[in-house]
Amino acid sequence: MYIPTLADMLVAHERIKPYIHRTPVLASQYLNDLTGAELFFKCENLQKAGAFKARGASNAVFGLTEEQAAKGVATHSSGNHGTCLSYAAGRRGIPCTVVMPRTAPQAKKEAVRGYGGRVVECEPSTTSREAVFAEVVAETGAEFVHPYNDPRVIAGQATCSKELIEQAQGLDAVIAPIGGGGMVSGTCLTLSNLAPQIKIYAAEPEQADDAYRSFKAGHIIADDAPVTVADGLKVPLKDLTWHFVQSHVTDILTASDQEIIDAMLLIWKRMKIVMEPSSAVPLATILKNKEIFAGKRVGVIITGGNVDLDLLPWQQK
Amino acid sequence: MYIPTLADMLVAHERIKPYIHRTPVLASQYLNDLTGAELFFKCENLQKAGAFKARGASNAVFGLTEEQAAKGVATHSSGNHGTCLSYAAGRRGIPCTVVMPRTAPQAKKEAVRGYGGRVVECEPSTTSREAVFAEVVAETGAEFVHPYNDPRVIAGQATCSKELIEQAQGLDAVIAPIGGGGMVSGTCLTLSNLAPQIKIYAAEPEQADDAYRSFKAGHIIADDAPVTVADGLKVPLKDLTWHFVQSHVTDILTASDQEIIDAMLLIWKRMKIVMEPSSAVPLATILKNKEIFAGKRVGVIITGGNVDLDLLPWQQK
Repeated sequence: MYIPTLADMLVAHERIKPYIHRTPVLASQYLNDLTGAELFFKCENLQKAGAFKARGASNAVFGLTEEQAAKGVATHSSGNHGTCLSYAAGRRGIPCTVVMPRTAPQAKKEAVRGYGGRVVECEPSTTSREAVFAEVVAETGAEFVHPYNDPRVIAGQATCSKELIEQAQGLDAVIAPIGGGGMVSGTCLTLSNLAPQIKIYAAEPEQADDAYRSFKAGHIIADDAPVTVADGLKVPLKDLTWHFVQSHVTDILTASDQEIIDAMLLIWKRMKIVMEPSSAVPLATILKNKEIFAGKRVGVIITGGNVDLDLLPWQQK
Repeated sequence: MYIPTLADMLVAHERIKPYIHRTPVLASQYLNDLTGAELFFKCENLQKAGAFKARGASNAVFGLTEEQAAKGVATHSSGNHGTCLSYAAGRRGIPCTVVMPRTAPQAKKEAVRGYGGRVVECEPSTTSREAVFAEVVAETGAEFVHPYNDPRVIAGQATCSKELIEQAQGLDAVIAPIGGGGMVSGTCLTLSNLAPQIKIYAAEPEQADDAYRSFKAGHIIADDAPVTVADGLKVPLKDLTWHFVQSHVTDILTASDQEIIDAMLLIWKRMKIVMEPSSAVPLATILKNKEIFAGKRVGVIITGGNVDLDLLPWQQK
């Protein structure tokens, strides 16, 4: 297992600069008053292809040799990694195949195709996804870019926190959603090297709390097919992300689906940004744990903005 | 009639800096490809209180003497000016009364109250609004801050374009929605002085096209109670805004309500920002008039983000 280093993150940032936005950091006085903390929202929903995963995907795609690149890339993804890998492959002009659960939001399937990628559907379980994916790789010879358990991807995601600490000085803590742990691992990589005084928190849906239980148990616990409105956070930790989580995360906090939806609506109303349920989990957990964050300067990573605008979570009866 | 000057705008910018955001300018490769232009979106939906009108309102409120301020401020507004005047009055700690049509979005009434302002309802016509408002002023002695036909307000709105030309270099044109003409007048004030080579376009709903007809006729034409999805743009030009429009605007372009809704959904999907129908009128008109903007660098002012999230325009059957 190769563990990505600070140097890998710095190389990644130079490599991907032409293909990503340096996303803005936004603040809301209303949310500061409500939480008692000073919150700095790093808006990766405004990132290329609508998610931070454009960083890791671009680092993986543009790091390939010509020979590797010719066969294309492939992945399995509950959504944004697939879109972002398709985006990065499109920018390099190479083929991309994405295995996605048939239950994934239609908007995410269309987004993969919109950037030129091919979608192959599987059942909404880890087991089915891995089986279908093995067939795809055998058939194409494509380079597998795992959504998170890949040093190239983690080094790419780590560039987000590098920008955040340049944009918001003197942070006491950073909190990010956790699914497979790619963003949290990248955050750990950057902050443990460049700003080890900043505490790192992960935020997870109660209904897909495998990372929380893993953290408490001291070993990886994986669920098959959890159900939560935060559809980007259903996947389990793997060895590489587990390494970062257990080494550098201060705590994992959880919130119910209703709390996540309430926090999402608050952000839409007060900050005027379109973001997906997964991105609302950090604010939901801050609102439940005000004592941890009161008086602190807290970076909050808004991970993505790819949501079905025809029916929003608070409109569903 | 006092016509605000470049000096008024510069004084306004220094005065209001503690109370407003320097909003970001965002871009979308997808929308650039779609229009053939290079678009720079000045995101006043991310402004304090969710609209550019925080600029003019703050300039008016913080320019009052102590004696004037003690009696408070009052206005009539189809929405955002009322919210923003309430915001500015709240920051100064003085009373604010807003006369609003009873048909205005519930979210806008709540926003006025949320900042501490008082809402008095009238019928949805210019005639009724002016009658009810006269009663309010007689009763309170409050300082009237007109939503747009006021030099203090126009000087405040003019600060938006000053930031825009600092943030996006070498623009060929700027386009903003037009209702009463406050933002367009402010844009004219700044650009005619600081960057007269930049062409200024105004964008208006076909269903409330009084500014368009005024522009073509050479005198103000006012409608009573037009109906359009772009609810912020129903009010007519007045003498001060007419002065700026006829002096500096290159053309006024119009779009249908369906075209406005389509453009709004495009911006939400691709740019991941929450903005109101009025703010989508410029993109709707650019998409209809690609030949005017092709190959040009165009500033597009997204004027506000206050929209009812329970039922979005594209969800209404």
